[in-house]
Amino acid sequence: MTAAIQPDVKIVEVGPRDGLQNEQQTLTAAQKIQLVHLLAASGLPEIECGSFVSPKWVPQMANSAEVFHGIDRHHDVIYSALTPNLRGLEQAIDANVQQVAVFASASEAFSHKNINCSIDESIERFTPVLEKAKQLGIPVRAYLSCVMGCPYEGPVAATQVEKIAERLLELGCFEVSLGDTIGVGTAFDTKRLLQQLTKNIPSSKLALHCHDTYGQALANIYAALKCDIRTFDASVSGLGGCPYAKGASGNVATEDLVYMLQGAGLTSGVDLDLLIAAGRYIDQQLGRQTQSKVARARHPLNG
Amino acid sequence: MTAAIQPDVKIVEVGPRDGLQNEQQTLTAAQKIQLVHLLAASGLPEIECGSFVSPKWVPQMANSAEVFHGIDRHHDVIYSALTPNLRGLEQAIDANVQQVAVFASASEAFSHKNINCSIDESIERFTPVLEKAKQLGIPVRAYLSCVMGCPYEGPVAATQVEKIAERLLELGCFEVSLGDTIGVGTAFDTKRLLQQLTKNIPSSKLALHCHDTYGQALANIYAALKCDIRTFDASVSGLGGCPYAKGASGNVATEDLVYMLQGAGLTSGVDLDLLIAAGRYIDQQLGRQTQSKVARARHPLNG
Repeated sequence: MTAAIQPDVKIVEVGPRDGLQNEQQTLTAAQKIQLVHLLAASGLPEIECGSFVSPKWVPQMANSAEVFHGIDRHHDVIYSALTPNLRGLEQAIDANVQQVAVFASASEAFSHKNINCSIDESIERFTPVLEKAKQLGIPVRAYLSCVMGCPYEGPVAATQVEKIAERLLELGCFEVSLGDTIGVGTAFDTKRLLQQLTKNIPSSKLALHCHDTYGQALANIYAALKCDIRTFDASVSGLGGCPYAKGASGNVATEDLVYMLQGAGLTSGVDLDLLIAAGRYIDQQLGRQTQSKVARARHPLNG
Repeated sequence: MTAAIQPDVKIVEVGPRDGLQNEQQTLTAAQKIQLVHLLAASGLPEIECGSFVSPKWVPQMANSAEVFHGIDRHHDVIYSALTPNLRGLEQAIDANVQQVAVFASASEAFSHKNINCSIDESIERFTPVLEKAKQLGIPVRAYLSCVMGCPYEGPVAATQVEKIAERLLELGCFEVSLGDTIGVGTAFDTKRLLQQLTKNIPSSKLALHCHDTYGQALANIYAALKCDIRTFDASVSGLGGCPYAKGASGNVATEDLVYMLQGAGLTSGVDLDLLIAAGRYIDQQLGRQTQSKVARARHPLNG
């Protein structure tokens, strides 16, 4: 075994989950497996491959177990899944998932509309997930949504985000991914939020999860890098969207993030050309145009 | 006369010139005049409305004199034009243009391919423009292209950019707009370039002109704000592109820039809703989709 060199920045690829869950079309397990293989080949260290939720709510994720069973796993890639409840965790365990994630909202209104319960109830609901995962030594990541604004409530206070993020970490989550679910935050909002949060939370426990609805995602990530955040979620080709926001737009495109990091001389371990190839594959499967400007600039026929 | 409150950031709207010059379709003077009126109504302080160049080279700008004659001028808006040579300046003077601009490239290869002469020759060519404009009290802005990379040469040295920028200022230009013509620069490149330039040049003499080809424009502007740059070029609806770059993309969309500045609490004097309306008008005329993510998010039918 050789010791892997730690990259400067960790990119968590959420395209196969957050991305595909918000695309209209449902892909077959074989298509998703091929996507995950291409993403792993590009050097991405962590790929969220599916979600163990009721297929009634998220039909696009119904074949997640099949996906996990079909992946040829690369030893230094983490293949994770979203598991909002104990039943989901049990299914994930059956599918040999190595790492799971839970989610909460920083906005009461969004929590009610999105998952039909209060923030407190949502945390109570996934507490057994954390307990069981701990027993089994499975790391649990937390997503915290609406950290810079809610489609129903408007602005969300940084102190509210801080309170819930701290609680998620106390409950045993190893990292909180701060989601600007509707993409309304600017670089200045990002800086203000992170300056508040990093007073009491180590920056190494925080990740940023940007949607590019208002075109601000990369500027926000740049601001977060300046606040010592080193983990960022992104979706290849900018897959996805958010059904709760007008003019929805997907996550920041992984290609555009990798390009920016290259300009900084910050390593991510990702080969941009292989990543663009992975994006081209999924765009062909979905019959969509890439949302990555870098992919479009490098290969004009993509756009 | 009331004293106008100086906004924190000056946005130079280049859509009617840099934007439209790179769109396939040529608009009538009436259409351009209507666009300029809508842009002025939104509060933009400076609008580049046309270019006095040979219609053989840039047919989209052939009706610039007619445009300038047709504009109902607002007293606190500057309506400027590009005038690459003395003949252009004379035509601009005939059309009552208040402010003009010249351009040079930071890349020898780009200068040769774009305007068929060396950088030195290009500066010699517009020196009479500067002399005559000075006699008449007409302020001259300078565009300096390829400051973060050239489609033919690749990377361009910051010291080379600095040398030419200083020369342009010495020749009497009041401001140098640093153009990332092919949009390859990242926020980190922007910071490095500006740190070099502002050693000897006051930041108030510099503007940034970003194309969003690689999706980096807003992050670059954010980095430039941190380097005390306060003047930014932008195109409503992200009009335009660059014929010299693969997968060309227009200037950063003015709407997305205004949105980011609002997040900073920085004033620009621009009303975002009126600006989006101006963008909608020009998109309808051109039969194109907006490239502004903010416009798309605010009015989903735009996108």
